[in-house]
Amino acid sequence: MNHMEISRPIEIRNAPIKDRFWSRYQELVRNTVLPYQWEVLNDRMPDAAPSHAVQNFRIAAGLEEGSFYGEVFQDSDLAKWLEAASYCLEGKANPELENIMDNVIDIIVKAQQDDGYLDTYFTAGRRDKEWTNLYECHEMYCAGHMMEAAAAYYKATGKRKLLDAMCRCASHIAGQFGEDEGKKRGYPGHQEIELALVKLYEATGTEEYLKLASFFLEERGKEPNYFLEEWETTRRKRTFKTDMPTEAPNLFYNQSHKAVYGQDSAVGHAVRAMYMYTAMSDVARIEGNEEMYRACRRLWEDVTNRQMYITGAVGSTPTGEAFTFAYDLPNETAYAETCASIGLIFFAHRMQRMDMDGVYGDVMERALYNVVLGAMSGDGKQFLYVNPLEIWPEASEKNPQRSHVKPVRQKWFGCACCPPNIARLLASLGQYIYSWAGKYGCVGKPFADNREDMLYIHLYIAGEGTIETERGKYKVEQEGNYPWEEEIRLTIHEVPGEKAGIALRIPGWCRSAAVERNGQPAFYRMEKGYAYLEKGVKAGDEIRLTLSMPVELIQANPKVRADAGKAAIQRGPVIYCLEQEDNGENLSALRLDAGGRMEVVYNKLAFSAALFEQIPVVVAKGFRTAEDGWEGSLYRPYVPQEKEVEIKAIPYFLWGNRKPGEMLVWVRV
Amino acid sequence: MNHMEISRPIEIRNAPIKDRFWSRYQELVRNTVLPYQWEVLNDRMPDAAPSHAVQNFRIAAGLEEGSFYGEVFQDSDLAKWLEAASYCLEGKANPELENIMDNVIDIIVKAQQDDGYLDTYFTAGRRDKEWTNLYECHEMYCAGHMMEAAAAYYKATGKRKLLDAMCRCASHIAGQFGEDEGKKRGYPGHQEIELALVKLYEATGTEEYLKLASFFLEERGKEPNYFLEEWETTRRKRTFKTDMPTEAPNLFYNQSHKAVYGQDSAVGHAVRAMYMYTAMSDVARIEGNEEMYRACRRLWEDVTNRQMYITGAVGSTPTGEAFTFAYDLPNETAYAETCASIGLIFFAHRMQRMDMDGVYGDVMERALYNVVLGAMSGDGKQFLYVNPLEIWPEASEKNPQRSHVKPVRQKWFGCACCPPNIARLLASLGQYIYSWAGKYGCVGKPFADNREDMLYIHLYIAGEGTIETERGKYKVEQEGNYPWEEEIRLTIHEVPGEKAGIALRIPGWCRSAAVERNGQPAFYRMEKGYAYLEKGVKAGDEIRLTLSMPVELIQANPKVRADAGKAAIQRGPVIYCLEQEDNGENLSALRLDAGGRMEVVYNKLAFSAALFEQIPVVVAKGFRTAEDGWEGSLYRPYVPQEKEVEIKAIPYFLWGNRKPGEMLVWVRV
Repeated sequence: MNHMEISRPIEIRNAPIKDRFWSRYQELVRNTVLPYQWEVLNDRMPDAAPSHAVQNFRIAAGLEEGSFYGEVFQDSDLAKWLEAASYCLEGKANPELENIMDNVIDIIVKAQQDDGYLDTYFTAGRRDKEWTNLYECHEMYCAGHMMEAAAAYYKATGKRKLLDAMCRCASHIAGQFGEDEGKKRGYPGHQEIELALVKLYEATGTEEYLKLASFFLEERGKEPNYFLEEWETTRRKRTFKTDMPTEAPNLFYNQSHKAVYGQDSAVGHAVRAMYMYTAMSDVARIEGNEEMYRACRRLWEDVTNRQMYITGAVGSTPTGEAFTFAYDLPNETAYAETCASIGLIFFAHRMQRMDMDGVYGDVMERALYNVVLGAMSGDGKQFLYVNPLEIWPEASEKNPQRSHVKPVRQKWFGCACCPPNIARLLASLGQYIYSWAGKYGCVGKPFADNREDMLYIHLYIAGEGTIETERGKYKVEQEGNYPWEEEIRLTIHEVPGEKAGIALRIPGWCRSAAVERNGQPAFYRMEKGYAYLEKGVKAGDEIRLTLSMPVELIQANPKVRADAGKAAIQRGPVIYCLEQEDNGENLSALRLDAGGRMEVVYNKLAFSAALFEQIPVVVAKGFRTAEDGWEGSLYRPYVPQEKEVEIKAIPYFLWGNRKPGEMLVWVRV
Repeated sequence: MNHMEISRPIEIRNAPIKDRFWSRYQELVRNTVLPYQWEVLNDRMPDAAPSHAVQNFRIAAGLEEGSFYGEVFQDSDLAKWLEAASYCLEGKANPELENIMDNVIDIIVKAQQDDGYLDTYFTAGRRDKEWTNLYECHEMYCAGHMMEAAAAYYKATGKRKLLDAMCRCASHIAGQFGEDEGKKRGYPGHQEIELALVKLYEATGTEEYLKLASFFLEERGKEPNYFLEEWETTRRKRTFKTDMPTEAPNLFYNQSHKAVYGQDSAVGHAVRAMYMYTAMSDVARIEGNEEMYRACRRLWEDVTNRQMYITGAVGSTPTGEAFTFAYDLPNETAYAETCASIGLIFFAHRMQRMDMDGVYGDVMERALYNVVLGAMSGDGKQFLYVNPLEIWPEASEKNPQRSHVKPVRQKWFGCACCPPNIARLLASLGQYIYSWAGKYGCVGKPFADNREDMLYIHLYIAGEGTIETERGKYKVEQEGNYPWEEEIRLTIHEVPGEKAGIALRIPGWCRSAAVERNGQPAFYRMEKGYAYLEKGVKAGDEIRLTLSMPVELIQANPKVRADAGKAAIQRGPVIYCLEQEDNGENLSALRLDAGGRMEVVYNKLAFSAALFEQIPVVVAKGFRTAEDGWEGSLYRPYVPQEKEVEIKAIPYFLWGNRKPGEMLVWVRV
């Protein structure tokens, strides 16, 4: 264990989920989302946007005549699906699925060129142009996603065919890029391969891949800037014209405006940023690079303390799907891409391995229970690319500034990055629940106390956990109905020795937590968001954690202009929203009574029946501005005219599952 | 007088302005704005964006070698300047200015082609392409503006050179377009020539011009659509490529999506819409076309009752500089172009001639005292294209959704439509003050009472008015210090006979007006926003009108989502705003106390010294959200923490004359 790695996550297979909330989502992914997406990738889904992804590989493999169709990054859709399916396989054997995967892996490997190159857009008659347009062409991005798929499939099945192919591909790329003379000093236009190379390194132990990941990060943004040179030497001349508009590079857009060490605020395309920060955290940890860690920490703070929506969404503008600047979080025009929040979860997950602070779990939870779940319809067949904080359907239709905000989920997208990204995250959820500690504390400093082999519980998801530490293993069982219910029960079946200890994350939203051990209030010490039960946890112990979950009104930092005078409703990690269906038209006319009662009522909502029998709905006292007497006029002297109303809020992640209508997260108080 | 013309405006020369508020603006236009813009048009202003407008005419006239430079509508900048200068001349002789104008008119007339065609973009080697791209190329727009200039110069000086040239041009166009066989059934991509042809008709009496204006309006939007045909036959083939992106026509953009009679909501480019509605009102009046009038009235109601900002600005989105839909009035991203509000004043002015309702004067005032004045800096040398309701300078810089909103006025624009438009409006202000009534009431219905030859006073601007009616003339003198002070004094020097009557507009914002005649409360009857003094007004009468001007909080229709829970400060016709300079950073943290005191304090503000000795500043009780204890966090449970503060508001039209900073019109209450 490196001196900066203070905790290690566990394998998906070692954390089977048996949870009232999550098991259904897991089944949905397994039984609906993956089969549905497979049909889409094979263009067998009549109403969905065409994909052509599998066919592109068949054509590249010489199995079929035809032309490439789709975005330059179309290959990655299949890769992400393979990765998601691998996580499902790891969680639960499925020979039929494995067979489908083996068949498509055969095609992929056939499509690979003799030298290791793999990209169906370029093999379709453009190989002479390979690596000449890194800014736009996503070659490394696609390769990266396939590397992730290969590592996941290998881990799930032990089969090396795709892994070996992607190792060849990685070696091919390492032959093209690097510091050695004759190699290009370029790096990807869309970051992704960096974190994928780390996975390949972890799966194979081959240092070359880690070195290449590190090179891409270290080289990025150095002067003279590669993308500016590429623009002058190649792209500007349009010798190779893609479908994308040929524009001079925007270095902020893909975070190549300065060396990564000098970056301290999140800028540009949010998904690119998240994938890069994730890789930076990986490399910092593995290489013990403290300067890189400090850059990660600065970026983490900027993202989560200054540029993150309350739902865990990031990206304040559709222009470049990008970050803007501190405290600029407009609700009506938020971009808030699903993939960016998934990337944020990756980033949090990596940071957690170096710094045992509850904030990482808090942000993971925020993004997971709100954006990621909200991005998929209750039936697993429709998705959101943009996760709005506010919907006015007429504005989405008629105001071009808001046309990116869709009031209904879509079946698929021409740029279909988000649906398979959701699938791979949900299928791999097990790995985020537990981790175990090494002997060091935050960034190289040994813990004051000895917490070696401590078991951490980050997420409250019922099921079993088998955690192998250096001295032996923990076996624990988690029960509960989080995030709906307050109580979590842990049964300890096995511990690795006398010094066994357990640390429970006390979520940042929780203002009153109780921990009992075998029916008695437990001794514990709070540190950075974790309750440490350090005194010899034993097999047979029963730990009961109660996280008090009142409905709360949350306010934003007053610097967030868009949320001034407003509050959001939250219960546990779940953000609530108002929908027109429950509250009538014009949600902006509603005002919450800050001092008024707010109750939780369990409702059976028809649309969510497939997932939940009962939903905790919040009913709150509020007021509605009277609309009488306006008769077509726009302005008149201010006379407050409100009537008391009951405001009903549902969990944000369930919005848009009924008739399309208005939706609102931030409500006036 | 046509049966639909119920009132006629008067000549600029007959309403000399001697007003403490406006005389300085008039002088500013005369002594600074016009000379400054003349330098810009001649490219002698080093820091301003290049214009080349005069040079384009010199090149077209064969007086100089060179190429056309600028937008396809560059000619119109010079035309608008000539029109503005003509109004100045009409108001006050200026031989030096007249000499400059004669010289440039000589160049313009030399630049005209033998057949009457005039457009320096096309005469610069593109004459074979004339009239082939009406959608984009602004030929008729430029011709229209020069016709307006010609009519204005003729009216001011009696000189016919430019007028005759533009009559030849109009006849040339009439030879190209119309219902007769062999003529094109096209109409302009940017409406303007329609209203200009009406002016040419009014200056010359030539029916052909009116007929052509009417044809352009009647033909617009008919099926098969001219622009769709032009797209298929010419534009799509790119035989003639302009600098503009070649896109399929957006028929909503230039209001050709349906026949004008069927239009009932304002859509598309706001300036195009306003110029078209103005021309529609002209044609409805002159032709006695009631169906056209009803269309105008529907459009008027949609614009002013559903799509107008409180400042009199219109245009809710920068995409297409356009209207969006009813009640969609976002503050942060408003487009609110200066020219659109000027167009709205034209539209109101024309509607007023057919329907004596105070709403037209109200809207005129709203646009004039807020947008038009606000669009020009106190020194007359810097201008706004977009008139924001809210400024956060960092967002203008870093959030692309708000990049069109400039926190400081600009010296000139590449697309320089707005500065000369302001000049021509301010220089012609006299014509908006008075009008006199014919014998008919609203749209063809005779007045129940006989109000023939009634004198109307629409705007309260001090000075003299000589109004020639059919039976004789009125001579009145107006005194006061509107909009700062409540009292207006009218001295009647001459009346046309025993039945003389005066109608005073009681502004819509005024909730308590008092009218005295010779020191006694006057007898008057209110009708649609006017106080009618019908009983034999006599020479020597002194009328004192007191318009009570308390500071008021104004609310928006609750359907305007963007203004929910907010109010604007208004006093008289003047909308107020908060600036960072007076209220500190983060104006969104401020809340007005709806029941609290609001006082007017006269302040000497350094920046406005050139225009005003004292400015009525509003001081109000309010609260500011405390920013303590947030230390880099974004969200926390809602606990109202406010401290009482004094909120200071200045007239909106004076915003941005100090250090750049935040600005806000709609404040939380």
